[in-house]
Amino acid sequence: MSREENEEIDPEFITRLVNCLGFDQEKVRHLFEKNYLARNWGKYEYLLRFDKEISHIERGTVLYEKDGSFEIIMGFPKIRRAMVLDPTIKKHFSGLEKVAVEEKMNGYNVRIAIAKEEILAITRSGYVCPYTTQKAKEKLNLKFFDDFPELVLYGEMIGPDNPYVSKDIYGIESVEFYIFDIREKNSGKPLPISRKQEILEKYGFFQARFFKKISLETAPEEIGKIIRELGEKEHEGVVIKDPEMVLSPLKYTSSQSNCSDLRHAFKFYNETGRDYMLSRIVREGFQTVEWNENETEFEKRCMQLGESILNPLRESIRSVKNGQRLYEEAKIRVKDLKTAADFDDYLKRLGIDAVFEEPQSVGEEYLIIIRKLNKSTSDKTQAIWQGEPW
Amino acid sequence: MSREENEEIDPEFITRLVNCLGFDQEKVRHLFEKNYLARNWGKYEYLLRFDKEISHIERGTVLYEKDGSFEIIMGFPKIRRAMVLDPTIKKHFSGLEKVAVEEKMNGYNVRIAIAKEEILAITRSGYVCPYTTQKAKEKLNLKFFDDFPELVLYGEMIGPDNPYVSKDIYGIESVEFYIFDIREKNSGKPLPISRKQEILEKYGFFQARFFKKISLETAPEEIGKIIRELGEKEHEGVVIKDPEMVLSPLKYTSSQSNCSDLRHAFKFYNETGRDYMLSRIVREGFQTVEWNENETEFEKRCMQLGESILNPLRESIRSVKNGQRLYEEAKIRVKDLKTAADFDDYLKRLGIDAVFEEPQSVGEEYLIIIRKLNKSTSDKTQAIWQGEPW
Repeated sequence: MSREENEEIDPEFITRLVNCLGFDQEKVRHLFEKNYLARNWGKYEYLLRFDKEISHIERGTVLYEKDGSFEIIMGFPKIRRAMVLDPTIKKHFSGLEKVAVEEKMNGYNVRIAIAKEEILAITRSGYVCPYTTQKAKEKLNLKFFDDFPELVLYGEMIGPDNPYVSKDIYGIESVEFYIFDIREKNSGKPLPISRKQEILEKYGFFQARFFKKISLETAPEEIGKIIRELGEKEHEGVVIKDPEMVLSPLKYTSSQSNCSDLRHAFKFYNETGRDYMLSRIVREGFQTVEWNENETEFEKRCMQLGESILNPLRESIRSVKNGQRLYEEAKIRVKDLKTAADFDDYLKRLGIDAVFEEPQSVGEEYLIIIRKLNKSTSDKTQAIWQGEPW
Repeated sequence: MSREENEEIDPEFITRLVNCLGFDQEKVRHLFEKNYLARNWGKYEYLLRFDKEISHIERGTVLYEKDGSFEIIMGFPKIRRAMVLDPTIKKHFSGLEKVAVEEKMNGYNVRIAIAKEEILAITRSGYVCPYTTQKAKEKLNLKFFDDFPELVLYGEMIGPDNPYVSKDIYGIESVEFYIFDIREKNSGKPLPISRKQEILEKYGFFQARFFKKISLETAPEEIGKIIRELGEKEHEGVVIKDPEMVLSPLKYTSSQSNCSDLRHAFKFYNETGRDYMLSRIVREGFQTVEWNENETEFEKRCMQLGESILNPLRESIRSVKNGQRLYEEAKIRVKDLKTAADFDDYLKRLGIDAVFEEPQSVGEEYLIIIRKLNKSTSDKTQAIWQGEPW
């Protein structure tokens, strides 16, 4: 979003924001100047988003004026990762008798809420994705938002027609929304798990799989078993929660999920963050030691790691050698081509270099293949094949 | 080196530097303020070092006043890396008929020169290492410096008693100096290879192994063969040079050397730069594609990569689990314990956390084990075992 649009913000609006956020005037102006606080565009211009974590406010938090005050939809709280299950779970949840274990699904994080009479699907960064919003309207029981306008669904868009994270492993035909938290507006306070489950069931929402409550003492071992089973199905991992949702959750992932991340990371080796790569590699190290693996298991893990890195690397390097450009293929399925056009505009605004192919009719809908271009890795690899040194 | 010491520099000295470097007064002052230009300490205080690449001057370049003007010893020029042999060599050396191929040895880069009647071993960063200096005095035919005070030896200290890069692969008992370039003071101009060889032979210096001159056309293939042979002996790789040393050299390394770097990198995973890790992994990808490896060879490469990463990672994670702190063991061999004490001081000045064990008598010398502590990886790993999330 350009600076110009922010400069129009009127002083009275700033004053109202000062009252809402509890920051002083100078700080609020500074946030706008730096674009740490920025407006969405088009019909969602009324929606401000935090592009950076500021004090206690998570990045991606959005807010809007309503009836003379502001309503805030808090961002996704960062979930810390247990690098080893024991003693991390016991230490983190110390004092609890039991922890609740839910599946961590591999999809695209999205908050769904009603704001100014509109259903919005808000991304982790605080944008309103037009495709996800349209899908949410089609897939979710919207009566929930009439009954609980003050609640926000925190979930994942899952399935193959997800243009961000496309996965076939969940047996979903197109996309569905799996909800993992319900939180209050403004405070961001989550409902206790039992209350959340009750509401999600009542409105027929899909929810992230709930395994069980486990006593703190046996949690590391039992979660280890769950993780191995999830891994065999290429599922991602678990989120471990305080049933009352007072203590913050922890996450832990399967080796297969780490390797799957690495396959993606090394396919586009010049685009991916170095820390992203390293952290996934280091997780493999801790897991093999914590699980006390024997040499056969360890060798298998080495091979999987090596292949997860070198296979995609080789594939990309070969493709470019053969004159191709690298891209990531995604797809969307829409009832109305207007949604696709809006999504195309949206990606352009975000600076994503994507090519939309011709829509194909599928039943009453259109399937559209999207190629997200990986310019940085393509260019780097091409330069090397043309004889440039590193 | 502290700021305070720099503040004493007198204005006349600055003026003389201005004349020597061709920078204006303000720039020279700025370089001192930022410590981009800094003095060595103790008896080498007269020696200024560039701690950063400035204009055409490489980082590690040193200079000192002599007879009213300055003498400059240029830093090690960065040698660019061929990621693929073909077409990089042909492109880089385009116009030459032949290139010269020398072994790139795995040691510690050092320049040896005479300055103000003193023999100095100057590190890549422009420090005078007291241990390396002492070894150079013992090992090298110093008559060279009487005959050619205007020339500088660019080489590597190689062998097991090298406290920086200790290698047993070269069949050296303690340490030796292998020279790869001779360059003039001030200009940094290298001697042509034939002249360099003539001088090195005359004074009985060891030199990096010279393979042969190869026609540009067949160089990628022939160098590929050399690299495979070197790799089998765990040797590092080659430097490819213009025989006249007019065009800059290129380097290329074996897979075994990449993996050896990775083994070290992942042992101290929280100390090592992310880019260092990534670049070595990406090299493996280009090599397997350029060499058109079959699936058996590829699988072997995957396994080697996976093991080079996970083995050291596992070892470090296990050690810390068992209550140990991580360190890197090095050793030095000295005739006079004063050299060890000076080296200890030197490492402390550089901020390296090293513990020197009791000297052991070996013949007429002392062998001293040094433990370089890896605090960052130790602390991080320990925190994880104590239940800290990532």
